[in-house]
Amino acid sequence: MQGLEDNTSKGRPEVSVLLGSASDLDRVSPAFQTLQDFGVPYEVAVISAHRTPDLLSEYASAAKERGIKVIIAAAGLSAALPGAVAALVDLPVIGLPVEAGPLRGVDALLAMAQMPPGVPVGTVGIDGAKNAALLAVRILGAYDPSISEKLERYRQSQAEDTLKKGDLVSAKGLPQWRRT
Amino acid sequence: MQGLEDNTSKGRPEVSVLLGSASDLDRVSPAFQTLQDFGVPYEVAVISAHRTPDLLSEYASAAKERGIKVIIAAAGLSAALPGAVAALVDLPVIGLPVEAGPLRGVDALLAMAQMPPGVPVGTVGIDGAKNAALLAVRILGAYDPSISEKLERYRQSQAEDTLKKGDLVSAKGLPQWRRT
Amino acid sequence: MQGLEDNTSKGRPEVSVLLGSASDLDRVSPAFQTLQDFGVPYEVAVISAHRTPDLLSEYASAAKERGIKVIIAAAGLSAALPGAVAALVDLPVIGLPVEAGPLRGVDALLAMAQMPPGVPVGTVGIDGAKNAALLAVRILGAYDPSISEKLERYRQSQAEDTLKKGDLVSAKGLPQWRRT
Amino acid sequence: MQGLEDNTSKGRPEVSVLLGSASDLDRVSPAFQTLQDFGVPYEVAVISAHRTPDLLSEYASAAKERGIKVIIAAAGLSAALPGAVAALVDLPVIGLPVEAGPLRGVDALLAMAQMPPGVPVGTVGIDGAKNAALLAVRILGAYDPSISEKLERYRQSQAEDTLKKGDLVSAKGLPQWRRT
Amino acid sequence: MQGLEDNTSKGRPEVSVLLGSASDLDRVSPAFQTLQDFGVPYEVAVISAHRTPDLLSEYASAAKERGIKVIIAAAGLSAALPGAVAALVDLPVIGLPVEAGPLRGVDALLAMAQMPPGVPVGTVGIDGAKNAALLAVRILGAYDPSISEKLERYRQSQAEDTLKKGDLVSAKGLPQWRRT
Amino acid sequence: MQGLEDNTSKGRPEVSVLLGSASDLDRVSPAFQTLQDFGVPYEVAVISAHRTPDLLSEYASAAKERGIKVIIAAAGLSAALPGAVAALVDLPVIGLPVEAGPLRGVDALLAMAQMPPGVPVGTVGIDGAKNAALLAVRILGAYDPSISEKLERYRQSQAEDTLKKGDLVSAKGLPQWRRT
Amino acid sequence: MQGLEDNTSKGRPEVSVLLGSASDLDRVSPAFQTLQDFGVPYEVAVISAHRTPDLLSEYASAAKERGIKVIIAAAGLSAALPGAVAALVDLPVIGLPVEAGPLRGVDALLAMAQMPPGVPVGTVGIDGAKNAALLAVRILGAYDPSISEKLERYRQSQAEDTLKKGDLVSAKGLPQWRRT
Amino acid sequence: MQGLEDNTSKGRPEVSVLLGSASDLDRVSPAFQTLQDFGVPYEVAVISAHRTPDLLSEYASAAKERGIKVIIAAAGLSAALPGAVAALVDLPVIGLPVEAGPLRGVDALLAMAQMPPGVPVGTVGIDGAKNAALLAVRILGAYDPSISEKLERYRQSQAEDTLKKGDLVSAKGLPQWRRT
Repeated sequence: MQGLEDNTSKGRPEVSVLLGSASDLDRVSPAFQTLQDFGVPYEVAVISAHRTPDLLSEYASAAKERGIKVIIAAAGLSAALPGAVAALVDLPVIGLPVEAGPLRGVDALLAMAQMPPGVPVGTVGIDGAKNAALLAVRILGAYDPSISEKLERYRQSQAEDTLKKGDLVSAKGLPQWRRT
Repeated sequence: MQGLEDNTSKGRPEVSVLLGSASDLDRVSPAFQTLQDFGVPYEVAVISAHRTPDLLSEYASAAKERGIKVIIAAAGLSAALPGAVAALVDLPVIGLPVEAGPLRGVDALLAMAQMPPGVPVGTVGIDGAKNAALLAVRILGAYDPSISEKLERYRQSQAEDTLKKGDLVSAKGLPQWRRT
Repeated sequence: MQGLEDNTSKGRPEVSVLLGSASDLDRVSPAFQTLQDFGVPYEVAVISAHRTPDLLSEYASAAKERGIKVIIAAAGLSAALPGAVAALVDLPVIGLPVEAGPLRGVDALLAMAQMPPGVPVGTVGIDGAKNAALLAVRILGAYDPSISEKLERYRQSQAEDTLKKGDLVSAKGLPQWRRT
Repeated sequence: MQGLEDNTSKGRPEVSVLLGSASDLDRVSPAFQTLQDFGVPYEVAVISAHRTPDLLSEYASAAKERGIKVIIAAAGLSAALPGAVAALVDLPVIGLPVEAGPLRGVDALLAMAQMPPGVPVGTVGIDGAKNAALLAVRILGAYDPSISEKLERYRQSQAEDTLKKGDLVSAKGLPQWRRT
Repeated sequence: MQGLEDNTSKGRPEVSVLLGSASDLDRVSPAFQTLQDFGVPYEVAVISAHRTPDLLSEYASAAKERGIKVIIAAAGLSAALPGAVAALVDLPVIGLPVEAGPLRGVDALLAMAQMPPGVPVGTVGIDGAKNAALLAVRILGAYDPSISEKLERYRQSQAEDTLKKGDLVSAKGLPQWRRT
Repeated sequence: MQGLEDNTSKGRPEVSVLLGSASDLDRVSPAFQTLQDFGVPYEVAVISAHRTPDLLSEYASAAKERGIKVIIAAAGLSAALPGAVAALVDLPVIGLPVEAGPLRGVDALLAMAQMPPGVPVGTVGIDGAKNAALLAVRILGAYDPSISEKLERYRQSQAEDTLKKGDLVSAKGLPQWRRT
Repeated sequence: MQGLEDNTSKGRPEVSVLLGSASDLDRVSPAFQTLQDFGVPYEVAVISAHRTPDLLSEYASAAKERGIKVIIAAAGLSAALPGAVAALVDLPVIGLPVEAGPLRGVDALLAMAQMPPGVPVGTVGIDGAKNAALLAVRILGAYDPSISEKLERYRQSQAEDTLKKGDLVSAKGLPQWRRT
Repeated sequence: MQGLEDNTSKGRPEVSVLLGSASDLDRVSPAFQTLQDFGVPYEVAVISAHRTPDLLSEYASAAKERGIKVIIAAAGLSAALPGAVAALVDLPVIGLPVEAGPLRGVDALLAMAQMPPGVPVGTVGIDGAKNAALLAVRILGAYDPSISEKLERYRQSQAEDTLKKGDLVSAKGLPQWRRT
C-alpha cells in the first residue's frame, strides 16, 4: 500500500476491533495494519462472549454514542462473538472467522454466517483480517470522500502491483504475455 | 415407554428446556414427552440468545437457586443459545441442535459442540430431542435412586421392544433368526 | 415489524440490490420488504457477472456518484457477482448466497466468503435476505440518526415478539416458565 | 485456575475417564488436570469398545454402585466407546472426540453425537478434554454446593484472566479500549 | 437377474444379515432379494448394538459354529453395529450404512469405515444393500464353484441388460451409437 | 437460444455423449438440446465402466478414427466412466457428474475431478449438462469459425435475455434500475 | 502380534494386493506385515486402472484360476482401481483408500464406497491397511480353521495388549482403575 | 516423459495459462513443463479477475484472434478467474483450482465447477496442473495429428513407467506378481 499515509490511529475511534481471545492478536494484525494505512482511527478490545458477557454488554451499550461506526468481531471455533455483539448494538458487525482447531475455521465461518433472521453479521473469509478491515473502510468511505479517494488509489495500486508481479513470469524463463 | 407412570410435570422444575425460537416447539416435543414419562418436573421457556439477551441473563442468574439441575438448550443455525446460557450459569447444559435451514442442522451441531475451553456444552445429535431429555434424566438419576430405577426399567423395555420388533422379519416372509 | 412506517421506496436509492438471475427474485424478497419497512430508498437490478459483464461494469462505475451507499449482491452456485462488483466499485458489498442446486447454497456461501485479500465481501447466511437488508440498514443507520432510532425500535419489537411467542408454550399445555 | 486447591484425586472416584486407547492419554490430560483442580475424585481406565468388549461390560455393570456419577469416554475415528458404555449403564456419558486420523476427529464427533434415540451421549468439541471435565464438574456441582462455589470462582477467574490479557493489546502498541 | 433360480433361502444359513432397527427392513430388502436370487441360505436378525448388547454377544459367540460365513450389518446414524459384531466374532463383516437422518447416511458411512486398526469392517455405499449382498455372495463364491458360476452369469446378464437399455437412446429420438 | 438453426444431428458425429446408465438420459437431455441447437453432429451411447468394460474399450479404441473430437461422459456415484474413457483414448473428456444418491452428486464430482496426474478429465458442475455441451461446442468452435460465430451470437442472446428478464423487477412492483 | 509365526509368504498366493501407484507401497506395508504375520500367502502388483488398463484386464481375468481368493486394491484420489477390478473378476474386492492429496483420502473413500449397484467393493478406512489385510484374513479364516484359530489368538492378544497398556495410566501418576 | 522433444515454447501461442496471482507460479509449473514437453507454444499471464478486471477484458477480447485455442485459468479461494474469462471469450476454459487457504482448494474446486448454465468451465483436480495441461494438449491433439501421435506415445510411456515401477515391489522384498 505504497503512497498511503502511515499515521497511527488517533482521534475518536470509528472502527472497533473485538477479539474473542488475546491469542488471536497476531492473526488479526493485518486488520490493524490496514486500518492504520487508511488513517482510520480504531480501537481494539479483548472481550469474550462466553467468558466476559457482562463486559460485552457494557461495551456494546456505549459503542454507538462513543462514535463507533463499524465493529469487526474476530473469533474461532463456535465463534459466538459477532452474533452476540450484533444482538446488543445496532451497528454493522463484520464477522472475522479465525483459523483455529481441527476444523480450521470452517466451524467459525458457519457460526458467523448462519445467523438467525433479525441479527445480521457480514462474514469475511477465514483469517480474512485484511478484508474485514477493508470492508470497514469501505463503509466509512461511503460517507467520507477523503477515504473514498484513498480506496480508489488503493484499488489502482493493487492493479499496478499485480501488473508488476506479472514480470515474474519472464523472470522465471517462461513465455510471458505482454500488453501491446 | 409402556409401564412408566404418565404424571404431568409438577412440583419444582428440575430440568429447564430453553428454545431459541417458538417455531421449534414441535421438533423438541419428544423431549417434553420423555421428561413427562419419567415424572421429572420441568419447565419450558422461549428465550433467544440474540433477540432477548437480557431475558437470558435474567433467566440464567436465577436458575440455580430456583432448583434447576440441568438445562437443555435447543436452537438451529448458528445456535448460540447453549453456549450463551453455559456462560451465564454453572449448571450442566445440554445442546440440542435443531434441523433447520439448508445445512440441515450441521451448522447448529458444530456451533454447539465446538465451544471454546472453559464453557462446556454437551451436545446430542441433530433433532435428538429424546436423547437430550434422557441425558438430563440420567444426570438426575445419578443422584436419585427412584429415577435410576426407572432408567433401568426403561433400558429393559427398550431391549424387549427391539426383540419384539424382530418378529417383523418373519412377518415379512424372511428367514428370521431366533434365540434357541 | 409493527410500528414502522410502510412507505414505498422513493427518493434517490441508497441501497442497491443486484441479482445474478431474475429467478432469484422471490428468494430475495424478504430483503425488499425489510428495506421498505425501514423506509430506505433502494433499487433492484438483474445483472449477471457471467452473462452481462459489460452491464456490470457500467452499473458499478456509476453507482457511487448516483448516491448508492451499500450494494447487496445475491447469487447462487459459484456466485461470482458480489466479488465482481466489489472489484469494480469501492462501496461496501454484502454477499447474499442463494440456496440453489444440489449443494444447497454451500458453494455460493464459500465462493462469496473466501474472497482473496484486497476485495472484501461481507457474506450473510444462505437465503439470509432479511439479514442482508438489515446489515445494509445498519450501515445507513450508523450515519443517519432517524434510521438508527428505527433500528432500536425494531430490536425492541423483536424482543417483544419473542416474549409473546413464548406463550405458545402454555398454549400447547406445557409447563411454561414465566418472569416473576 | 489460580485460587483453587490442588489436592490430588482421592476418596471414592465420582468421575470416570475411559480412554479407547492408551495413546490418547496426553490429549486427554487437560481433563485430568481440571478434575484435579476442582478436587474431584476420579479414576482413569483404558478400555476399548472393540478390543476389550468384555472388560467394558464388567466395568459398566459395576460403575454405578461403585459411586461413579459421570463417565467421560474419549475415543477417535469411529469412536464407539461413549455409545457402548451408555448402552450398558444408565449414568450420564460425556463423549470426548479425539483428533486422530485424516478426518481430524470429525468422524469421531459425528459418531458420538449422532446416537440413535434411547442411548444418549453428550458430546463436547474435538479435543475438548477441558470442557469434558468441566461438564462433569458442573453435573457434580448441581448437587454439591462446595463444587458449585468453586465453579463460580472459576468463572470469575476466567473473566479476570480475559480482562488481564486484554492489556496485551497496548503492549503490542495497538490502541486499546479501556473501561472508563 | 433373469436366468437365476429363485429358490427361497433354505438349508443352514451361511450369510447373516443383522439390522440395528426393524425400521430398516425395507431399505435392506434388495439384499434379501439378491441372496435369494443366488440361492444362498441366509438369516435375518434385528439386533441393536446399543439397545440389546447382550443379545449381540449371544448371537456373535455362536455364529461361527452355526455355519455363518459372512455377516452383513446394516445401521444408520452412529452405526456402531458392524464394528460391535466385528469385535465379537472373527468372521468377515460387511457394513451397510443406511440413509437416515439429516446427514443422509454420511455419519453411518464414516462410522463404519473409520474403524480403529485391529477390527476390520468392509463398508459398501450408503443404502448399498444390493452390493452388500453381492459382496457376501462373492466371498462364498471364492470357495464354491457353483456360486462362482452364477456370479459369472450374473455379470454377463448385467452387461446384456446395459446393452439392451442402450436402445432407449434411439427410442427417445436421439442419435444412438451402435456396434458395427 | 432464439436465432440459432434447429437442425437435428446429422453427418459424422464429432461429439460423443456417454452415459453410465440409461436412467440418466433425462438429466443429460439439456446437453442433447444444446448440441442440436448449435447444429453439432453427435452420438449417444449407454456404456458402463463397471458393467460393460469391454464395450468401453471397443468404443474408445475406435472413437478417434471415427471422427470424434470430444467425449462427454456422464455418471453418478463413484463415477468412474470419464476417467476410464480418458485412460483408453487421448481425446479431451468432459466429466458430467449426475446428481444421484444421498450425496447428491458430490461423490461423482470429486471422483471425476480428482483424477491422478496423467489422465485428465475436465469436470463441469453437478447436473451441468448444458455446460458440458457448451464446453464441447467451444472446443469445436476453436477450430471451426462457423461454430465460433454461433457461440458469439449465443453469448449475445444470453446477455439480451438477462436484460429482458430484468423487467420482471418492475413487473413485481419493485423499484427497477434502468440504463440511462 | 506376539505368538503368531513369522513365516514369509510362500506357496500359491491367496490374497492379492494391488496398488494403483508404487508410491503407495510404504503406506500399504501394514497390510503386508499383517498377511505375513498370519502366514497367508499373498502377492503384490502395481497396476493402475488408468495408466495400465490392459494389464488390469490381464491380471483380473487370470486371478481366480490362479487361486486368488480375495483382492485388496489400494488407491488414492479418484481411486478407480477397486471398482475396475471388481468389474472384471467376481472375487471379493476390498477397497483401501490411501491418504493422498488435499482431501486427505476422503475423495478415495467416497469413490470406493459409493459404487453403483451390481459391482460391490468393501471399503475400509483411510490408510486402513492393517484392517484391509485382517478383513482378507477373516474371509480366508471363514473357510480355513487354522487361520480362524489364529484370528482367535490375535483377538485375545489385542485384548491383553490393551489391558497391559492400561498400566500407562498409573505410570503417569494418574488414578488408575483396576479390576478387582 | 522420456522420448518427447524438449523444445521451448515458440511460435504463436495456442495455449494460454492465466494465473490469478503470481504467487501460484510454482504450483502451476507442472503445466508449463507438460506444455513444453509436448512442444505446444503457450503464453503465461498474471491477471486477477478481482484486481485487474480491465486487463482481463483486454486480454480476453483479443485472445481468439491472436490464435489462442484453449485457456487454462488457475486460481485459489473463491477462484473467479476461470468463470470470468469464460464469460468474456468463447474459447474452451480449463479451471485449475490451486490448493490455498484453510479449505485446501475445496472452495476453489467448487467455485470453478459449479458455474451457472451458459458459461462452461472444465475443472481439473486441486493442484492438477499437469492434467490441466494434458487436457489442453488433448484438445489441440484432436485437430493436430502430430500432437495426437505424441499423446499416444505419452500414454505408452506412462504404462511402461508404471510397469517398471512395479519392480519396487520385489526390491522391497515383497512377493511380486509378474506377467507370465
